Amino acid sequence: MTAVTSPIKFSQRWHFAREQAISFLMQQAVENTGVVSLAAGLVDFATLPVPETQAAISQMLGDDAAARQALQYGTTAGSERLRRLLLAHLARLEGTTVEQLGIDAGQLILTTGSQQMLSLVCEVLLDPGDICLVAGPTYFVFLGNLNGVGAEAVTVDTDDGGMRPDALEAALEALAAAGRLDRVKLIYLVSYYENPSGVCLAEERRASIVEIAQRWSKRHRILILEDAAYRELHYDGPVLPSVWGCDASRDTVIYTQTFSKSFSPGLRVGYGVVPRDLVGPLCDRKGNEDFGSANFNQHLLATVLESEMYAAHVEQVCAAYRIKRDAMLSAANRYFSDISGVSWVHPHGGLYVWMSLPSRIETGFQSELFRRATQAHRVMYVPGELCYGHSPTERPRHQMRLSFGVQSPAGIDDGMHRLSRAVRDVV
Amino acid sequence: MTAVTSPIKFSQRWHFAREQAISFLMQQAVENTGVVSLAAGLVDFATLPVPETQAAISQMLGDDAAARQALQYGTTAGSERLRRLLLAHLARLEGTTVEQLGIDAGQLILTTGSQQMLSLVCEVLLDPGDICLVAGPTYFVFLGNLNGVGAEAVTVDTDDGGMRPDALEAALEALAAAGRLDRVKLIYLVSYYENPSGVCLAEERRASIVEIAQRWSKRHRILILEDAAYRELHYDGPVLPSVWGCDASRDTVIYTQTFSKSFSPGLRVGYGVVPRDLVGPLCDRKGNEDFGSANFNQHLLATVLESEMYAAHVEQVCAAYRIKRDAMLSAANRYFSDISGVSWVHPHGGLYVWMSLPSRIETGFQSELFRRATQAHRVMYVPGELCYGHSPTERPRHQMRLSFGVQSPAGIDDGMHRLSRAVRDVV
Repeated sequence: MTAVTSPIKFSQRWHFAREQAISFLMQQAVENTGVVSLAAGLVDFATLPVPETQAAISQMLGDDAAARQALQYGTTAGSERLRRLLLAHLARLEGTTVEQLGIDAGQLILTTGSQQMLSLVCEVLLDPGDICLVAGPTYFVFLGNLNGVGAEAVTVDTDDGGMRPDALEAALEALAAAGRLDRVKLIYLVSYYENPSGVCLAEERRASIVEIAQRWSKRHRILILEDAAYRELHYDGPVLPSVWGCDASRDTVIYTQTFSKSFSPGLRVGYGVVPRDLVGPLCDRKGNEDFGSANFNQHLLATVLESEMYAAHVEQVCAAYRIKRDAMLSAANRYFSDISGVSWVHPHGGLYVWMSLPSRIETGFQSELFRRATQAHRVMYVPGELCYGHSPTERPRHQMRLSFGVQSPAGIDDGMHRLSRAVRDVV
Repeated sequence: MTAVTSPIKFSQRWHFAREQAISFLMQQAVENTGVVSLAAGLVDFATLPVPETQAAISQMLGDDAAARQALQYGTTAGSERLRRLLLAHLARLEGTTVEQLGIDAGQLILTTGSQQMLSLVCEVLLDPGDICLVAGPTYFVFLGNLNGVGAEAVTVDTDDGGMRPDALEAALEALAAAGRLDRVKLIYLVSYYENPSGVCLAEERRASIVEIAQRWSKRHRILILEDAAYRELHYDGPVLPSVWGCDASRDTVIYTQTFSKSFSPGLRVGYGVVPRDLVGPLCDRKGNEDFGSANFNQHLLATVLESEMYAAHVEQVCAAYRIKRDAMLSAANRYFSDISGVSWVHPHGGLYVWMSLPSRIETGFQSELFRRATQAHRVMYVPGELCYGHSPTERPRHQMRLSFGVQSPAGIDDGMHRLSRAVRDVV
């Protein structure tokens, strides 16, 4: 047999996608039990729905026909039963009726978490060199998706009300002046308790951004991708309408949500609500990727949604996270308030506190702080620089995403204490 | 608000992927209950593992720590626990020990069905214009994957022993002579009871094809993608080693398998065993697509594999399919043997009987036969022309893939009777 030494010749796509931070971080989070992780996007273990899942599965498998349906293949777009229930779910969140939503179940596509929907949208819309406008900071995994298709993430100025409409307008004007408007395809918004910053897109900005996208859709449509992953993790503050709800045309906004945060990430059930002319293209692409996410899980979620269990569970989850959010803010106050130049955001929902250090203190994987934190003080965070679409020289490097999702209140306090000692080491 | 009329500008990728037959067919199969489907790749309803799933879930959820682990996020590559069990599973199928497999659990990647692994391999290896050598006929969904990345499927002559090594050699020589060897990246083989033809790659051809791939790996490696989806659906005839087992280097063959056929497709648990230098690239890509398939389902499958239930269930499934295979062959004999020019393959496993009509009788979606079959006689099949990588003018158009997976023996007989009447209408 010939000795095999010849190298693999990878695709251009692979060169775009290589070495995403998410895999590294998730691996760390799950396997590195010696370190207090304030990095992981994992959810609270204590409120994971063990009895709810057991009850729903017993009910589902107790009905022989339903059981066999759930264990059989489904369709590429996902269970019709769950999609109908999601229409009702969405109507409740929007404070309206299913009829008034102005869409049908055929415009819902069920995916492996909402992550797969984010990925599918990039696949069917973006060519190398195309542009997506994003907040700064924004969800770093989505930046990986943009890289993965060779697209460019152009950052729009952002403040504590999220992406600024005037800055979006200015960015579009600048791109038009540079002759690049024909490459602008998408605006990405994490509209509730943004991962990583914890900020909510201000209510009055929501309709404005839809209007701007529509007005700048000159030769082709500029779509908005609304990532509402954290919408149901609401602890206090106002209840806001979705960006999607501000789009009367139903043609401009792609809305995505997941049950990973409000129920269980182990089931990986997410969905998108998409303009009618995107349904076919997204299903074609999903047909190629997996021709349907796990049908069993979709039926399980449907059974949960049909019961009283879901609403009660969300309430329980939010109560638990509210306590943890408060624990992290108290600990921040306790351990960081006397360190000059340190500040943080007070989130009204979600899983993250965004902390800024003095601008000279770098937080990246190669930084002294990261080394001190992980090796000396045994605590882990997500470096803020991963969350910016700027080119490497422009991105702020002095911030951290701190998650209160997976640790107990005591663990959060311990982690914040450790982190404060690491920061003191380098300040 | 501005009226939205501007069209969506889709990516080049979308143009490659559009209108895959799989979504159309699956939709038909699941929703079109008035037609006897011999088309669907659905599995037997009667043997779906309802009690096994209930038992495994009760066990899993009865252990609080295990339950919470299963309901939490997993990793991109999938549950370490299941991957270790799959090493033992693979060793049993290969008739060897885990130690002698010569790989570790890190070379296994868990996916949403094996379909996602087929898709991931295409993504990280194939650029537009790259070449994958395939059998003729071959799995039509995979041809969609090749289209989806803009790659070319070059068909290698195939007989009742599967892809012919001499024809593979000739195809590589012709490509080299045309200066196209640098575009050849992959050889795709459905090694057991090929979907759609039902044939097995002959034992003596397995090592030959590995040797050919290695010898022609001149400047870069030509990889073999072995799709062993139907391996465990063995009814009679010899038990064959895998192509992967013939690759002592462990660098040439990517092996994929799924639990969709042997256990439950509703769980969508599949996996790939991959050369070490492909692990990182595939995980990077999967990180972008979904950062991990459903962890709950992986733990469920692990619990099933740890028990005695799995082997017993596979035995039960094979017994049921053997009866259905025999029902289809009997019905073929009963209803078609007097129609001149009709022939079919006798499969030793899998879910399909491949039938050839006289070459003048077309079977495609637009054909008179398809119209007669679906509308007058209410029976559905997969047109054989979908299963060829040739350009449209070259592909045979007179064949059909007939599945005995989902219908009962009586339903199979009924479907074959209906189909024979449709054929008689047009002969």
